[in-house]
This record gives sequence, C-alpha cells and structure tokens, in this order.
Amino acid sequence: MFERISILGKALKDNGADVFLATHPITMGYLCGLFEDGHERLLTLAIHSSGEYRLLCPALTEAQARRVGLEEVVTHTDSDNAFDLIRDLAGDWNLKTAVVAVDAEMRADILLGIQDVLPAALFRPGQAILAELMAVKSLDELDLMQKSGAIADAAFQAVLPKLQAGMTESEVVSLLESEMTKRDGVPLFAIAATGAMGAEPHHRSDGTILREGDVLILDFGCTYKGYCSDITRTVAIGKASEEAHKVYRTVWRAHEAARHAVKEGVSGAEIDRKARAVIEDAGMGRYFIHRTGHGIGMRAHEDPNIASSNNEPLVMGNCFSIEPGVYRPGEFGVRIENIYSVGRDGAVSMNEPPSEILIEVL
Amino acid sequence: MFERISILGKALKDNGADVFLATHPITMGYLCGLFEDGHERLLTLAIHSSGEYRLLCPALTEAQARRVGLEEVVTHTDSDNAFDLIRDLAGDWNLKTAVVAVDAEMRADILLGIQDVLPAALFRPGQAILAELMAVKSLDELDLMQKSGAIADAAFQAVLPKLQAGMTESEVVSLLESEMTKRDGVPLFAIAATGAMGAEPHHRSDGTILREGDVLILDFGCTYKGYCSDITRTVAIGKASEEAHKVYRTVWRAHEAARHAVKEGVSGAEIDRKARAVIEDAGMGRYFIHRTGHGIGMRAHEDPNIASSNNEPLVMGNCFSIEPGVYRPGEFGVRIENIYSVGRDGAVSMNEPPSEILIEVL
Repeated sequence: MFERISILGKALKDNGADVFLATHPITMGYLCGLFEDGHERLLTLAIHSSGEYRLLCPALTEAQARRVGLEEVVTHTDSDNAFDLIRDLAGDWNLKTAVVAVDAEMRADILLGIQDVLPAALFRPGQAILAELMAVKSLDELDLMQKSGAIADAAFQAVLPKLQAGMTESEVVSLLESEMTKRDGVPLFAIAATGAMGAEPHHRSDGTILREGDVLILDFGCTYKGYCSDITRTVAIGKASEEAHKVYRTVWRAHEAARHAVKEGVSGAEIDRKARAVIEDAGMGRYFIHRTGHGIGMRAHEDPNIASSNNEPLVMGNCFSIEPGVYRPGEFGVRIENIYSVGRDGAVSMNEPPSEILIEVL
Repeated sequence: MFERISILGKALKDNGADVFLATHPITMGYLCGLFEDGHERLLTLAIHSSGEYRLLCPALTEAQARRVGLEEVVTHTDSDNAFDLIRDLAGDWNLKTAVVAVDAEMRADILLGIQDVLPAALFRPGQAILAELMAVKSLDELDLMQKSGAIADAAFQAVLPKLQAGMTESEVVSLLESEMTKRDGVPLFAIAATGAMGAEPHHRSDGTILREGDVLILDFGCTYKGYCSDITRTVAIGKASEEAHKVYRTVWRAHEAARHAVKEGVSGAEIDRKARAVIEDAGMGRYFIHRTGHGIGMRAHEDPNIASSNNEPLVMGNCFSIEPGVYRPGEFGVRIENIYSVGRDGAVSMNEPPSEILIEVL
C-alpha cells in the first residue's frame, strides 16, 4: 500500500540505520499522504528497516491518519506522557541500541525527549537517506513542478506591467501572491527588494518605496499540489544605470553558463564553478556571496545542492535552482533564478527563459 | 542595550544552565529584534549565563544583524563547516562540559551537529526557561494582543453575514484571511470545518461544501506587530438541530465557567477542571478530547498550558486561550475560544464575548 515506506525501509538497511522517525508534514506526506504537523505534540511516523511502520500521534490526528489508510496507529492525549509510546515502540522493535535516523527538522524538544527514553541508541540526521529518494523525481512529480513553475511565470508576467515608482515592496509582494493564488498556486514566499535592499539576499519586504531608477529583485514561488516553484527576476523601475545593465548581463551570462553545464554525471560543484567563473572574470566575484542553487521539490530547499561543497554527480530527475547573483552593498542587487531538472539532453527548464537584458519598466 | 538578553542570562544561572542557543526567529526576535530563520543553515544567538551573547550566522544575515544593533557577530558561508563556529564558541566560553539549553524548535540536524562538537556537554530543552519570561506579558505586549484580538473579532463580524450554504470551506478561509489582512493583521491560520468535518479539531479546510443545517466551526487568528490572536466561533448555516443548540449551550457554559475561574494563583489544571465539569455534567465528557487552552503571545502556542497537567499558579500578565469543545464523530463539532489575560480582577478578554446561543445564519 505505501510503496515509499518499503523503499525507505530498504534504504535504511543500506545505510546501516534501524529506524527512521519522520515528524515533518512533508516527510510524512511524501511517505504516506498524511500532511500533518504535531507542532509541540509528538507526532511521528516510525519506519523500521524491515518495512514495518507505526504512527505515534495525538488522539486529535487519528481520524486523518485512518483516512489516508494508515492501520498501525497508536495515540496519546494531552494528559499522557507521549514518550511512553516511544518506550513501547522501542520494546516492540528492540531499539535499545539501535541506530535511529531522525527527520532533519524534528524539533529539539521532541528529539531530546526521545534521546531520554533511548539513552544507548545512536541518533543521526536521517535527511540524507530520505533526501536521496526525494531528489529523484518521477515523471508525475516533474509534471507538477512544471505546472508550479508556470504559475510563477504567469504571475511575473501579470505583475510586470503594474510595477511603478511610488509603490511599496509590500504592495508588490501582495500582487505576486494574489496572481499566484488566482492560478491555483499556494503562495510559498515572495520577496520584493528594491534599490539598496536588493543587496541583501534575504531582505524581508516592507514599506520601502520603489524609486525611479531602482533595480528591483522579485523572488517568489508557490506550491501546486504540494510541489514548489521558485523564480527570481530582476527589473529596473524606469531607466537603470549603465552599471546596473552591466551587472545584469554578467549575472545572465553566469546563469546561462551554469544552465548549459547541466548534464547527468556533472556535479553541483562544477555547475557552481561555471556560474562563479563568469562573475569572477567580470571582476565581481566578491559580490557573489551564496551558492549557485538548491534542490527543490515538495520542499523549497532540498537536494541536490548546487555549491562548491557538492561533488556528487547529478542523476536524471534531479531538480534544482540556478540563481547566481551580484550584491553591491548600499547600491543594488541582481539575481536571476530558474528551476531546472536533469533530462536526457541536459537541463529541462520548469520556467520561461529569463530576459537577456535588464528590463526597464517605463 | 538588549535587556531581555541580560534577563535570560540571569534565568540561565537560576536554572543551572550555562548557555542558551536560540535558533527560532521568534526567540531571537523576542531577545534582540532579529526575526530571521536560518532554515537549514546554522543561525543561532548564543547567550551565556554571564549575559554575554554571540550571533553565529550565515554571511547573508550579517547586514540585518548589524541593523538591529548586534555587535558580537561571526559568520559562515556555504563553503565553510558552520559547526566550526560552535567549536570556537565552546573554546571561548569553556563549554566542553557545559549545560546547554536549546530552543525547543531547533532543528534536529542542527542539534545533532552541535552535539557532535560537544559530546560531553549536557543538552536540555531550554523552552521552559525562556517560556517563563515570555509568559508574563508587559502592558505594551498586552496592548498589541488586544489589537490583534480586535482584528480577529472584526474579521468574524465581517464574514458572518456572507456565510451561506453552497460555499466551500476554502472560500470561507479566504474571506477570513482577507478581512484580517485588510485590518493590518498577518493571517496566521484559518480553519473552517463544517458538518462532520467539525468533529475533527485539526481538520484542514478544503472543497467541502457548507450545507443547510450544518454546524460550522471557524478557528482563526493573525499576528499584529508580532503578537497573535486566535478565536473560535461556531455558527449554524440555516436552522440547526435542537441537539446542536444543546451542545452549543453546554460548551458556552463551560467557556464561561472557565473564564470566571481565572485569577492570579489559580492553576491551569483548575481552569481546565471547571470547563470539563460542565461538559461532563451534561454527559458529553467523552467528546471533549483536548485541553481547555494554551498560552499565546508571539507564538500561537506557548505557556501557560490550561490543562490537567499544569498545576503551576497563574501570574498577572499570563495570556491564554479558553476553548472547550464537544466533537460528535460523524455529526458535528462545537468550540468556543477567546484569549484572556490574568488581570487584577480576574480574566481580561482580548476579544468580544462569544454569543450565548448558537447563531443561525439564515
């Protein structure tokens, strides 16, 4: 019934782990269709390397669990000690000295509670095991990634003619979100960073006003049926400086160089190098302060990493961003991002190609 | 400069902890104004019991950190091993065998990485220490809680006349969110659960259609300047059954009984008992399957817990929900929730009083 649970069981065995404890709604959703968050309550799908599973959950969640077809379900209420369920599981599955892989995003209080019950077990982040499975998308998954990407593209096209000096970043964010929502996307995040704010890659959009001549970064995405999009477009409000045009062209060429390098067997590090080389050759290397990209799927950030640290060869079905950027402190930033998958003939884009030149919204 | 950091330092000393590692944006925001999320990257505000602090962050975050006035900042990039910063900190602060309190919501992969660097340190969930500080609201904070509550109340009043049979739960959610947004609230969550769906306290709203005679639960809230609201209103679409009216009255009386019990020195358990007694006396005890309430502030769920497990006396400035409910599987659910703080003369409501009888939207 739950094929991905069996596959994960085998992967645990191959990786020398006895059990995986999933707590994140996306992890559980991927494995069995239960997209639920326990928040501060213990809610974990335990998977044994034998392929057995058991859901430990608050009584509140039982009905949803039964509805997705889970049969092995034990529950606790707010007046119980939830970790007794871990104790029972440890007895039934003989986990006293087990190797326990845990969801990367499991909360520390939950992990410390489990470690208390199993002081002789060896705990490991389990993300790598799961990530390897999730990093290879099926054709069905790629189809949803394409649809999610198309929603982001269409939102950009709809918002572009509405941009003008005098608007605030927050207004631009609202427009992007509402255009994604209209097209059945669930907004995941949206950043508008104008002028000097654009030089901070993680700026939180606020009441900052778009001014004539500003370079504006729009970085946004949505989920569609659980799958993420994530694009970045950089445009100018009115006429941009020659310098801004030059930086844009450099970042665009870096993006293209990285995209053309995508192929089965090539590493994330090599792709990162291609993008970085273009920016360094233009004398802007010190302004490119992050990795070239990140894997994406049901999560906005997953494997494979497109960074100097990742020497693993890419495989067909991998899906990731290419998003070189140049950030000039106090002045402006430029970033261009699309999502690509690794296909038989190289990169397959989930998005429309970005503009070759800096668009000036006049 | 950062008064809350000093206070936490003292609290660490009182609790036998040497250092606190904050990773959650709200924890860091509360302590120093930096509302940032490291996601999969190490981003932690370390606080020593001496009152010293150090921010360990990605290079991407440095500008924001400086802007809120943080001076002790060390950075890493994606090509570094971020945990080397923990190693340096451990050397400078002598943490080899320290008691390290960690943010409850720290990710497991980050915690396991830190545990690797400090194998002889003792790790503890640090939430209780921090929660005790955060659970006592200042007058400024209560003012923001009131404003956040007023936005939720106004959204309910605005949506109420628009409810009608034939709408979907998702449409109701959109209405609630847009009415909160209009009033400068940032929607935090919104649940519409109609008919049998209302019997599942954590139902996720979907395309389920509101039908004539349905009992509909609306549970929603927003943040306003970082502070949360959270109310639940139960109404009927058209004429409701006598049974639904009876259940509503019982839940309303349970709510009132709990509210009247609020006073400095009374425990969460006692308040929970008051609500539960009313529902049990009506023969509906087995359908009240969760605690009576939860603390609330910058987080939707914080201390104090209003549950049988909490025997701590309430103190002035505590802020929490009272939300008894009755859930009849396969039929309907009723829940009534307001937020209260503990004032000099008992409960101070952050919301308008809920209707004494089940409102029928005709």
